Amino acid sequence: MASLKILKLGGSAITDKTKPFSVRKDVVKRLAWEVSRAKPKNLIVVHGGGSFGHPLAKKYRLIEGFKAKSQLKGFAETRRMMMILNKTVVDAFVSQGVDAVSVPPLAFIRTSNGRISFIDEDVLKGLLGLGLTPILFGDVVIDDRLGFTILSGDQIVAKLAVSLKAEKIVLASDVDGVFTSNPKTNPKAKLISKLSLSKLEETVKLKSTTTESMVDVTGTMVGKLKEMIPPVNMGVKVFVVNALKRGRVFQALKGLRVKGTKLEP
Amino acid sequence: MASLKILKLGGSAITDKTKPFSVRKDVVKRLAWEVSRAKPKNLIVVHGGGSFGHPLAKKYRLIEGFKAKSQLKGFAETRRMMMILNKTVVDAFVSQGVDAVSVPPLAFIRTSNGRISFIDEDVLKGLLGLGLTPILFGDVVIDDRLGFTILSGDQIVAKLAVSLKAEKIVLASDVDGVFTSNPKTNPKAKLISKLSLSKLEETVKLKSTTTESMVDVTGTMVGKLKEMIPPVNMGVKVFVVNALKRGRVFQALKGLRVKGTKLEP
Repeated sequence: MASLKILKLGGSAITDKTKPFSVRKDVVKRLAWEVSRAKPKNLIVVHGGGSFGHPLAKKYRLIEGFKAKSQLKGFAETRRMMMILNKTVVDAFVSQGVDAVSVPPLAFIRTSNGRISFIDEDVLKGLLGLGLTPILFGDVVIDDRLGFTILSGDQIVAKLAVSLKAEKIVLASDVDGVFTSNPKTNPKAKLISKLSLSKLEETVKLKSTTTESMVDVTGTMVGKLKEMIPPVNMGVKVFVVNALKRGRVFQALKGLRVKGTKLEP
Repeated sequence: MASLKILKLGGSAITDKTKPFSVRKDVVKRLAWEVSRAKPKNLIVVHGGGSFGHPLAKKYRLIEGFKAKSQLKGFAETRRMMMILNKTVVDAFVSQGVDAVSVPPLAFIRTSNGRISFIDEDVLKGLLGLGLTPILFGDVVIDDRLGFTILSGDQIVAKLAVSLKAEKIVLASDVDGVFTSNPKTNPKAKLISKLSLSKLEETVKLKSTTTESMVDVTGTMVGKLKEMIPPVNMGVKVFVVNALKRGRVFQALKGLRVKGTKLEP
């Protein structure tokens, strides 16, 4: 699907991570408006869980998989909260004239030891073919080894980009892009506008073996970037931009000049 | 799955069909309570659309399949409303201590000319295996000939009962069971407590060729019963009971004496 774009709306951008179950409705609404203005022909949106998914997932240790019956309440509750956040996102898109449709990953993606082992893409192809916009999210899924686990939106984005041969991925986060160090704690951190795959792989490697690195991104950012290696390798254009700044997502989707980081082969 | 029970909550029972988008919250809550008391080991719940699905589906002629771009808004809106109804049902079950999980059919079932042609049952098996209760619903789905169509909860119930080898189906509707004529218009209508498959097939046949029949059930009931022929044939116990009468769903799930209609091979 040559013209397919995949937009990831980071949980840290669309929710307030400091307060459980608090969505940034104004941000979601503006992002839906930017998407409707950019009018991409084929678009899949994947959003994170932020303060809707993480507190319960952590409390019930869902990422570790099934250990005790007491976790099932946490599984059900986490899904309920994710469906509420998803509804807010879908509603915002529909109200901006985007024919958006919720497609919960639990129902069509499974993992093996935390990595996607089964994904039925035909429903997404069908929806895109009709002109609809599927909205997915980081979800609790069935895992053949762990029983269940948490599947990140980033892993979904990368997998779909590769298998559906996407043209572009836009990772919309709460920072301007990839920095030389953590911009939230180091005022001297500098934005990297172009990050090559070799540099990226080096960073990920360093990050997983030592605590220091040349490109000192946050832990979350490292995980995100690591997932992007296969799509970048395949030629998918990947941009990291700030969803909290008006216009960035629009510019990135349209292929206009945009402040952020471009990942390059 | 020998002990699997499938409960269909009819749209006419859980919503008020005379008012668009009106859920009978008290009925849904009581039904969730009856299920939690009956505590079936393996249970799948499928609910209908009632006044949440039908008005929009009719307005945008969704059952006819994709004809015009203008229907896409209707597709998106119908799904939004169905997700809202589904949330109400899931919430009620969770609040009664049932670890219920929404599994939207759009994401894992597809049809060909209105009949199910693909269904990925592994997610349901995974959820049941963990002790969770999947909650499905009549949904808009991708159809390889029509583009999309409306898939009834009844067709889903029958298909799952056959492929997962269910023990029992409980169809919970807004009437006491199958009558000799339409109980809503004919005060002389009599409840049929046992309906054999041969009689049932005869009825369905008559109904589709003539306007009169020996067992004069409503059009909706005929469609429902027709779907049940394969599971009844396979030995699945099928009960039609009234969800609006307290205790009937509980009794049917528990295998107690219950007022209603039993379909027999």
